[in-house]
Amino acid sequence: MKNNFRVESAEILCVGTEILIGDIVNTNAAYISSRLAEMGINQYHQEVVGDNPDRLRFYLKNALDRADCVIMSGGLGPTYDDLTKETVADLMGRSLYLHERSLERLESYFKGRQIKMTDNNRKQAMIPEGSVVFDNDCGTAPGMAVEDEEKGKIVILLPGPPRELHPMLDNSVIPYLSQFTESVFVSKNINIFGMGESTVASIVDDIMQTSTNPTVAPYAKDSEVRLRITAKGSDKDACASLCDEMIERIRQTEVGRCIYGVDTSLEEALVARLKEKGLKLALAESCTGGMVAKTVTDVSGSSAVFDGGVVSYANEVKKSLLGVSADTLDCFGAVSEQTASEMAEGVKKLMNADIGIALTGIAGPGGGSEEKPVGLVYLGVSGKNGTFTKELRIRNNGRDYVRVSATKQALYAALCEAEIF
Amino acid sequence: MKNNFRVESAEILCVGTEILIGDIVNTNAAYISSRLAEMGINQYHQEVVGDNPDRLRFYLKNALDRADCVIMSGGLGPTYDDLTKETVADLMGRSLYLHERSLERLESYFKGRQIKMTDNNRKQAMIPEGSVVFDNDCGTAPGMAVEDEEKGKIVILLPGPPRELHPMLDNSVIPYLSQFTESVFVSKNINIFGMGESTVASIVDDIMQTSTNPTVAPYAKDSEVRLRITAKGSDKDACASLCDEMIERIRQTEVGRCIYGVDTSLEEALVARLKEKGLKLALAESCTGGMVAKTVTDVSGSSAVFDGGVVSYANEVKKSLLGVSADTLDCFGAVSEQTASEMAEGVKKLMNADIGIALTGIAGPGGGSEEKPVGLVYLGVSGKNGTFTKELRIRNNGRDYVRVSATKQALYAALCEAEIF
Repeated sequence: MKNNFRVESAEILCVGTEILIGDIVNTNAAYISSRLAEMGINQYHQEVVGDNPDRLRFYLKNALDRADCVIMSGGLGPTYDDLTKETVADLMGRSLYLHERSLERLESYFKGRQIKMTDNNRKQAMIPEGSVVFDNDCGTAPGMAVEDEEKGKIVILLPGPPRELHPMLDNSVIPYLSQFTESVFVSKNINIFGMGESTVASIVDDIMQTSTNPTVAPYAKDSEVRLRITAKGSDKDACASLCDEMIERIRQTEVGRCIYGVDTSLEEALVARLKEKGLKLALAESCTGGMVAKTVTDVSGSSAVFDGGVVSYANEVKKSLLGVSADTLDCFGAVSEQTASEMAEGVKKLMNADIGIALTGIAGPGGGSEEKPVGLVYLGVSGKNGTFTKELRIRNNGRDYVRVSATKQALYAALCEAEIF
Repeated sequence: MKNNFRVESAEILCVGTEILIGDIVNTNAAYISSRLAEMGINQYHQEVVGDNPDRLRFYLKNALDRADCVIMSGGLGPTYDDLTKETVADLMGRSLYLHERSLERLESYFKGRQIKMTDNNRKQAMIPEGSVVFDNDCGTAPGMAVEDEEKGKIVILLPGPPRELHPMLDNSVIPYLSQFTESVFVSKNINIFGMGESTVASIVDDIMQTSTNPTVAPYAKDSEVRLRITAKGSDKDACASLCDEMIERIRQTEVGRCIYGVDTSLEEALVARLKEKGLKLALAESCTGGMVAKTVTDVSGSSAVFDGGVVSYANEVKKSLLGVSADTLDCFGAVSEQTASEMAEGVKKLMNADIGIALTGIAGPGGGSEEKPVGLVYLGVSGKNGTFTKELRIRNNGRDYVRVSATKQALYAALCEAEIF
């Protein structure tokens, strides 16, 4: 390994008062963490500090005492309160110099966008001496690694905006760090729908408690449960095999019937299944207002299985485009199994699809009644063997929760329907 | 103030290996932070620790040395690796006892959902002696505050799932903490679209550097820029006035023409403007696949201004539902200003709306060519004075980035169009 450095552990230190006051969510830490985990670099602690050089210096020094590498994000911007570089240079006894390549890149970035480069942008090309510089392909601030050869420590500085940080991490930082690592981790996630975390955990409790390599851990998120299987070793393929054996073992338990995939999402599993079977999906959405279509089309290549959908917020649209009968709407209301059923049939026919999925319900916070409370949603599925509906009674944990839960149920229903073709 | 306690500073300490390995994004920290900031409680540092009692104890002890209050989330679940309560009780010299009310609530929670209560759930009703207990209305684990009267320190424990944490924080923890606070902060965000962060910062640089109360700070997010104005004082109204004066001052600068609102979002501003003017919006989406409709209907009450939309992924749907002519598609292609224009007109007519907005483009990662690269999107607007189109050349920073940017541009275009009615 280069310079006899070895990176076995890392800490993430994000800089920004906007994170501390809750103005932005710290997605950078999650992104960096998952990449480090894949490389087998241990992380025991991560933290956030505001734009204050004294505190930044204090926490950075402590983090460097504990970990081989500290990865920082934020504070490389053009404004006066961006002080990460200066603080790191000071702590590590380096001075800053104007890095010519970075200055040229900055100038061409602004020229290409026909924007005038302001003086404060020039500050972004100042680099601590002896650093490895990472070009920024999506923004202005370059990243850098400052190596302390004596102590065997590395500080990596990355820009704060996620769209700049992600490609820099993937394309520059991971290859750079891989010079200093040995063992690998492989993780696989078992995706489960329709069974709660407590139930899953109690079924696989024995396995979780007794397995050390791979380890098994449950996570709950947005009405789904995942079991994360993580194997450690010196070889990627051997780790992957350990994971696969464990996945097979868990498939044999009661959890098995609720497993819909491994390392996937409901929408990815759905698009893949529809492709495999050569089926087309059509969507009619009332309460979810396009969220199901948006989620399906989040998947690249979804155009092969999805021609289109209708967002039918108003009854008039349910009638004119989807062919829901006026009688149905009058007698049973827009939020009813009859309407869901006609919407599903209507959109399937309209789009000339194999499977039509419809949702109509009360997303809240307004619009609920005792008879039809917020969270009541009807799901219609029109497919191979006619049309059926399902009444969902989603807990009223807010509009977003109701809509996301209804969307997940619709995706799962479509996946199950595709299965029987 | 109760017991002579005073909470001027707090640290957030989130517990969970799943955060450290990047499996979930730490949205709890952001939510808690923003609430603390509103109460005028200072935060200088926040951190994440894995499910390891020794490290948890170490970092908790340090955080308690620095701050008056430490708020923890996570590790209250039913499984063997949920150890937050045990660790806190140990550090603070308390024993755990079975809290009757919490046990009853747990039993009724499971009974109401017709799920069998497992033995490991019972562990969730164990509470350190002398704690203030916060009921969990959306899940199983109660929260709690453990007060150390001697040292004047408080540790607050909250469940990890956001849908449980949010209501508990708002309904129980904030009222509890307000016994111990004096000064207040008021923050307002100026929302800016169509001007970059560097430009905004350089225009208001003088104001930012010289203002101490209120302070002014810029943040960039998803093609938008915000200026956050924060005033500190003893009175909410006085703080709000200080903010309002600063907002007025910034409106007078060059930034003013790009300000679309204060403390709002593009979609909220759009729905409010359409309501105000009694206008109806219709949406035709190709590359965004329903994302614009989903975003508009994220706003509660959007049904008053939005009857529906069409997701026209396939050309067949563009023709049959939106009336795009076969000639247009043949001569200019689906991704063209002509198609965008006919889609906007078509959906406006179809939905009998005042404003029709259409998007067609290449979201990527596939489907791009030299002539029509990924990120090329045409926006069509059909409104008061006929129909016009706009060519967007969005940087190819990934499918999600292209779709989100196109969505924001569509919302902003609709907002501007509503303005002229």
